[in-house]
Amino acid sequence: MASQLRPAALVCAAALAALAPAAALSAPDAALETKFDGLIDPAEMGGWMKTMSAEPIHVGAPHNRRNAEMTLAQFRSWGWDARIETFWVLYPTPKEVALELVEGRGAPFRATLSEAPVPGDESSSRTRDQLPAYVAFQGDGEATAPLVYVNYGMPADYEALERLGVSVKGKIVIARYGAGWRGLKPKLAQDHGAVGAIIYSDPRDDGYAVDDPYPKGAARPPQGFQRGSVADMTLFPGDPTTPGYGSTKDARRVAREDSPTILKIPTLPIGYGDAQVLLASLDGPVAPASFRGSLPITYHVGGGDGGARVRLKVASDWSLKPAHNVIATLKGRERPDEWVVRGNHRDGWVFGATDPISGHVAMMGEAKALGALAKTGWRPKRTIVYASWDAEEPMLLGSTEWAETHAAELKAKALVYINSDSNGRGFLSVGGSHALQRFVNQVAADVADPQTGVSVRDRLRAALAVAAAEQPGNTRAAALGRIAADPTRDLPIEALGSGSDYSAFLQNLGLASLNVGFGGEGESGGVYHSAYDTYEHHSRFVDPGHAYAGALARVTGRMVIRLADAEVPVQRYGDFADTVAGYLDEVKRLADGKREEAAARTRLLAIGAYRLADDPTIPRSDPAPLPASPQLDFAPLDGAVARLRTSAAAFDQALAAKGPGLAPARRKALDAVLLRQEQRLLRDRGLPFRPWYRNMIYAPGRFTGYGAKTLPGVREAIEERRFEDARAYIVLTAEALNDYAAGLDAATAVLNGG
Amino acid sequence: MASQLRPAALVCAAALAALAPAAALSAPDAALETKFDGLIDPAEMGGWMKTMSAEPIHVGAPHNRRNAEMTLAQFRSWGWDARIETFWVLYPTPKEVALELVEGRGAPFRATLSEAPVPGDESSSRTRDQLPAYVAFQGDGEATAPLVYVNYGMPADYEALERLGVSVKGKIVIARYGAGWRGLKPKLAQDHGAVGAIIYSDPRDDGYAVDDPYPKGAARPPQGFQRGSVADMTLFPGDPTTPGYGSTKDARRVAREDSPTILKIPTLPIGYGDAQVLLASLDGPVAPASFRGSLPITYHVGGGDGGARVRLKVASDWSLKPAHNVIATLKGRERPDEWVVRGNHRDGWVFGATDPISGHVAMMGEAKALGALAKTGWRPKRTIVYASWDAEEPMLLGSTEWAETHAAELKAKALVYINSDSNGRGFLSVGGSHALQRFVNQVAADVADPQTGVSVRDRLRAALAVAAAEQPGNTRAAALGRIAADPTRDLPIEALGSGSDYSAFLQNLGLASLNVGFGGEGESGGVYHSAYDTYEHHSRFVDPGHAYAGALARVTGRMVIRLADAEVPVQRYGDFADTVAGYLDEVKRLADGKREEAAARTRLLAIGAYRLADDPTIPRSDPAPLPASPQLDFAPLDGAVARLRTSAAAFDQALAAKGPGLAPARRKALDAVLLRQEQRLLRDRGLPFRPWYRNMIYAPGRFTGYGAKTLPGVREAIEERRFEDARAYIVLTAEALNDYAAGLDAATAVLNGG
Repeated sequence: MASQLRPAALVCAAALAALAPAAALSAPDAALETKFDGLIDPAEMGGWMKTMSAEPIHVGAPHNRRNAEMTLAQFRSWGWDARIETFWVLYPTPKEVALELVEGRGAPFRATLSEAPVPGDESSSRTRDQLPAYVAFQGDGEATAPLVYVNYGMPADYEALERLGVSVKGKIVIARYGAGWRGLKPKLAQDHGAVGAIIYSDPRDDGYAVDDPYPKGAARPPQGFQRGSVADMTLFPGDPTTPGYGSTKDARRVAREDSPTILKIPTLPIGYGDAQVLLASLDGPVAPASFRGSLPITYHVGGGDGGARVRLKVASDWSLKPAHNVIATLKGRERPDEWVVRGNHRDGWVFGATDPISGHVAMMGEAKALGALAKTGWRPKRTIVYASWDAEEPMLLGSTEWAETHAAELKAKALVYINSDSNGRGFLSVGGSHALQRFVNQVAADVADPQTGVSVRDRLRAALAVAAAEQPGNTRAAALGRIAADPTRDLPIEALGSGSDYSAFLQNLGLASLNVGFGGEGESGGVYHSAYDTYEHHSRFVDPGHAYAGALARVTGRMVIRLADAEVPVQRYGDFADTVAGYLDEVKRLADGKREEAAARTRLLAIGAYRLADDPTIPRSDPAPLPASPQLDFAPLDGAVARLRTSAAAFDQALAAKGPGLAPARRKALDAVLLRQEQRLLRDRGLPFRPWYRNMIYAPGRFTGYGAKTLPGVREAIEERRFEDARAYIVLTAEALNDYAAGLDAATAVLNGG
Repeated sequence: MASQLRPAALVCAAALAALAPAAALSAPDAALETKFDGLIDPAEMGGWMKTMSAEPIHVGAPHNRRNAEMTLAQFRSWGWDARIETFWVLYPTPKEVALELVEGRGAPFRATLSEAPVPGDESSSRTRDQLPAYVAFQGDGEATAPLVYVNYGMPADYEALERLGVSVKGKIVIARYGAGWRGLKPKLAQDHGAVGAIIYSDPRDDGYAVDDPYPKGAARPPQGFQRGSVADMTLFPGDPTTPGYGSTKDARRVAREDSPTILKIPTLPIGYGDAQVLLASLDGPVAPASFRGSLPITYHVGGGDGGARVRLKVASDWSLKPAHNVIATLKGRERPDEWVVRGNHRDGWVFGATDPISGHVAMMGEAKALGALAKTGWRPKRTIVYASWDAEEPMLLGSTEWAETHAAELKAKALVYINSDSNGRGFLSVGGSHALQRFVNQVAADVADPQTGVSVRDRLRAALAVAAAEQPGNTRAAALGRIAADPTRDLPIEALGSGSDYSAFLQNLGLASLNVGFGGEGESGGVYHSAYDTYEHHSRFVDPGHAYAGALARVTGRMVIRLADAEVPVQRYGDFADTVAGYLDEVKRLADGKREEAAARTRLLAIGAYRLADDPTIPRSDPAPLPASPQLDFAPLDGAVARLRTSAAAFDQALAAKGPGLAPARRKALDAVLLRQEQRLLRDRGLPFRPWYRNMIYAPGRFTGYGAKTLPGVREAIEERRFEDARAYIVLTAEALNDYAAGLDAATAVLNGG
């Protein structure tokens, strides 16, 4: 599903001339990589895309099945050992959807809920098999109720509404996309007593405000809407009825009604053409400034009993559908039981040209090139596993069910999972496990940017430096700019939250993971998850000539080759230690801020400041008092981070000194220790409310969705003022870090001949 | 003209229980003030407004003359010695205005250029004498040329356009209101070679994006446009043909063609209804993100030869018009030659209910109450002068010509000028001379807020504290919040730039000045300078019941009474010293920032970073290199500020110790020294490019217009990289501060018996 690419946020990296000594530890085979590059053919990838996105490719669609067969045939023809592994997943598809304004200005009005073909885009005319407006895993039902506009539908918005005296209880909410993951909007509406939810795409975010609407430009046309999953992935991804284990054909299943990740209220997505009619029908207070989008209306909150009323109905087919993962293997010559796993999903919401086929064709280009290399004599030292995932869009079903099914084997064998998804023109962005930051920088230094000819690392470095110069007040941009301006420093990689297939590997199994893509210049946001994400749109606006599909294949293919063939570990653990130390600083500042916020609110409430400050003609209640925030004892984490830094430095130094000359048996022993190294970050207890998420360093946020929270047990507890949890997870997270340091100490002992 | 009230920016203040000893130095006469308060009658003020804003009241309009006669009669009936003092000012009024889209999408289209009556607003139907769309002191002419959208039309916008390869030479620009004073837009367009300019009100700023358009709500309707002056006030205000002296009937005059403050290109204002047609006709690049408003279109820059072309024509009547100031005096009993001057303008663009009548009726309410007090035995110690200014809107003509005509007498006698202008519901905001900051706080502590009953100081304090709590990332809000949360600290007053009648007094004559108003809750922005600024709009949306006209009268009337009767000086010079020290810190940081910016740009240009960072499909040229920025020697200013702090502290202490027991002759001597104290901040050379502005501490910005620049000779030179000027004005500004400190030393000597 890969939300819009955010290259300025997800940053990546650079291996530098100055770092040659480190690179030499496990020097890449330049001749092999040059040969590999020569086998990458962007035009061929474009042809594959045209075929694969020719018809709707959602889970269970006929063309999805055809694409699985095509992918299987490709792998086999290129010499891979490939098979289709099918899971049977719950995936509801709409049987009936209806949305009407039944009372209020503009009533009666019936929302379109379908996306008409646009001139010049032949794909968009292939409406056979295309599903109407829906979001997966909402709660079927019918409701007729007053309408309330809840802005982004995030917690802060409900606080603002509460102060305005507007309740959503018994009402239908309309929320705009943005500021948090889609699924949180109906979930929070449901938690606040709403009986239905509508999500719309405001033109400010991806419509006419940012570019001419498609087909003139790349932006979302008024009838275009964003589908997506609203299964509660903050609890766990994967099939809602097989929590934590694979949804094989005969698997036992939780009753649908009992699954905590399926919502209870009917929910539909709409375009801004329809939304404008609904929003213009609202009365009640003028919406606060932070609620206003770019429609040519005065946004009101609504909620009055005499105002607008809408009828919303959704009925779905809840039968199980097949999810066809295609799994292909190139067996390692020396370490067949050490796996490098690489994946990209294959299912889409409609034609899915950008999301996911743009990434899928890059992966297949790599697979073809690796197969060709294998046919001419090269054979990887370790086993390479390529996966074409199905059913990612409904909530990472294909990858999660596979990972859960093969958990034990993966934990024993997989040393890394490398993911990609939507891809477009622009800048490299990489997120993942920070011990791989140096490795990512090294790879990025060796791949040329298609548009400028410099390395993708140098282009990103330039962009970060210019962004800092052009935004003098932006402290985050300034920090990145300082790093970018110093050619002796690596560019940072970002922490991973969720939103694509790495989640089960990183957060449930504890495998080192990377998520790689290009973007920021090709414009894909305006057709995201709509019927206009077509071959035509992608070729015109997102990646003309598929040049960046080629660049992605060169980056991720190189990662696969280098990891599969590495003589000594590519990790530098000091980067992980530094990064975690930075997270701890952030969390401490967060705790200070929360304490100050609570104290300030108590003080202001005591003197009645809110009532004095408020406009008496727009009555607002006082904000709720905040519980006093204790001083937290961070000593366990301080100690763990200090130990981690020491152990990481010792390992990095020992590796530099001893690595190159290490005897083969020792190398194998070292690999055996490090293969499970990232798994040491897991705790069996998992995170509060969601034991499936076991990684104590990286998680998707409970109130951000895709967005990452680092040190999540501690950080989110402080954010949500669960101070008992904060205390417990300071200890638990420190344990995980100490365990990680112990793993490094063991590895150092191997290096030093222990 | 008083741009939209900005209460969060212009902040004011609080006398505190803890400060009673200081207040006691010149204790206010509480019984007198209670009596004064009892004489303030908001309902009566509302009646005056209804009469005064019943017909158009621009300069030279029949109803403007009637209002002058009414004001004169009121003063006289209340016992004041009053007269009308008429100047003959250049004030061009439109004879012919035309704007057409002649080529491009939507052509042919003729812009409306008039404001139709709206239902429920009887005033708006009185179109007799109403003038069509125009801005005063544009350059008459006719042009037909391609159209270019220049965003706000500020320097940064032209830099962005230049990088996009878009020139305005020979073209007509369309700019939106905002981000800088109106007159800078056609001026900068003219400087860049444009042949015409259009200024429109984007709905994002004061239209449907902020409230329902009038008459449903208070916001600007699509046909509403903002008139205003575009005379180049950054050079000097007042009649363009009598620079620096009074435009009396027989005054010699500069030829109109030779006046530097009259623009050379035709310019018109339009509403967003018309603007949408023009903007939708543009092609060329999609506008950068910072250019986008809230119209339901994709904003393009235009500028292509084959695209939109418009015809623009303006022809004006350039005859002299009479400006009738009404000047009223209540003679002082003991110090008739020390004056407290109070003024508000009386002319408007159309009906002018909010701007300026809302402030004018408050001033007249004070005048009536002071007259009544005088009839029952009270007589001010010093002379009080009230002024009802005409011709403020075209560029402060009435007040400036009066100040220039009476300059010598004012410099010898006036100890303060207190101004008001548009006024509305909300929070007190005061700007002015910082030696009066404590005085302002004391007054604000003694006037009750009409809506909450607490003092207007305490309400503002609450608002600032809440604003800080609700905007945790806003450093300015946080700084104000820290002050507001500490009841022992005064709230700061803001520096004055321009935009109302204080300018000549503060910046040319060097009189201590204050500008006082309420606002922030009453919504006046949407009708600002339009035909919908009516009694009906004001009474519904801006100040229902005219309660804040009453509050303004109580604040400014108190200021007048206390200053007129003060036994010892009300100033606390330490506040001025602290404020100037803060400005110096800002200017030093600015210099550092400019140096870093130049260095960063040089570095980025050298490595070609801009080209690497830019999207190659949207070609942009490199930004221009910046001249190397030298280290400036701030020692003269450091020394002057240190001396100022010492001298101010010595005076404040001596006043506290000796003031209360000072013999009458010494008091008079002290007043004589301090009366000219603020004039010591003037330098005859004036500011670079604009010698009329002589105050070295406060000025309107060359590229902000109304917005203040403090230490302007130094600050603007650094901003504009005129480093020779920066060096010269470091010395000159230090001289002014040393002179000011010497004045304080002289006053301290009087206190200490010297």
